[in-house]
Amino acid sequence: MCTTTTAPWKQLLLNSLHSNSNLRHSSYFQLATITPNGMPANRTVVFRGFENETNKIQINTDCRTHKIEDLKHWPFAEICWYFTDSWEQFRISGLVDVIDGSNPDSLKLQQREKAWFDSSPKSRLQYLGPDPGLPSLGDQPVQVPSSLDPAAGPVAAFCLLVLDPHEVDYLNLKSNERICFSRMIANEVISWNSEKVNP
Amino acid sequence: MCTTTTAPWKQLLLNSLHSNSNLRHSSYFQLATITPNGMPANRTVVFRGFENETNKIQINTDCRTHKIEDLKHWPFAEICWYFTDSWEQFRISGLVDVIDGSNPDSLKLQQREKAWFDSSPKSRLQYLGPDPGLPSLGDQPVQVPSSLDPAAGPVAAFCLLVLDPHEVDYLNLKSNERICFSRMIANEVISWNSEKVNP
Repeated sequence: MCTTTTAPWKQLLLNSLHSNSNLRHSSYFQLATITPNGMPANRTVVFRGFENETNKIQINTDCRTHKIEDLKHWPFAEICWYFTDSWEQFRISGLVDVIDGSNPDSLKLQQREKAWFDSSPKSRLQYLGPDPGLPSLGDQPVQVPSSLDPAAGPVAAFCLLVLDPHEVDYLNLKSNERICFSRMIANEVISWNSEKVNP
Repeated sequence: MCTTTTAPWKQLLLNSLHSNSNLRHSSYFQLATITPNGMPANRTVVFRGFENETNKIQINTDCRTHKIEDLKHWPFAEICWYFTDSWEQFRISGLVDVIDGSNPDSLKLQQREKAWFDSSPKSRLQYLGPDPGLPSLGDQPVQVPSSLDPAAGPVAAFCLLVLDPHEVDYLNLKSNERICFSRMIANEVISWNSEKVNP
């Protein structure tokens, strides 16, 4: 087990979230993965906080989306998170843990359950809708149940993704500064190296 | 040579650009590529219009950035373009043509020159700055020349990327509609198939 220290980029990211918090989309970022046939894939997802006190980034998703297939085949992803008000970009690359209901680790299942209850009742309903990406049947609007027992635990389609960052590239377009952070592990202690680079 | 028709997703995209045009960042999107060692990479870039009357998407970039290495190794990319005001997402995947000053095709060199002169004098100056991504020297701010002859053609570092879309996944989070467009070529005629799918 490794000792972790709070990463220096984490405070920058928390500052950006704070200074852009008036914007609903400030918690949205783009997650790039690689498909099983070797093609780049990219989509918008929502930041669901850090895992406990760690540097790990949580994302909720539907087990039936292609990104699950991508990540099971090749578990690396890069987040690109652009803050439209402060003109800051974070590129965060790392390994993604896919935690669905079949996970054998009871701690991870607890995490998934916590993520489920932390999400709004409305967003929970999405996971009861028809298979994302499959052809819509007929012209009627998508049928989703209108309510769900608020005490009911995660449904089968609910999946928690946890990205463990190993490199962060921070760019500030107002100050024209760029810093690259990279994780180092020595004697089971994690530390972060940072370097100013040309923007 | 193929006959092209205006893609049905292009009008949707033009509408989104129009309805979000009050926002500076509406022309920004995220471009995912794959690095030579097989890792996903993702960064924000700026939309520089369509190539003439085609469906091809133009991006200006610096030859010295990693994305050039990525694309020369594996020329596929996926754009994720989220419009923050209209809540629409376009995922656009395709093949990318990397047009730098050494390109043997004179028509492509003309295109690159046009892209250079279409960009603002201020943005042209960026290409004269130090090597992006390399360590900054000292603590002084980045040195960039303060002016450039407005009639001077593209500098060596200037590169035009042209993405030729073959699939577009459109999602509207307000109407909860999603449409997948895919390109088909038959008898040298390009057409687009569209299908409503579950969001």
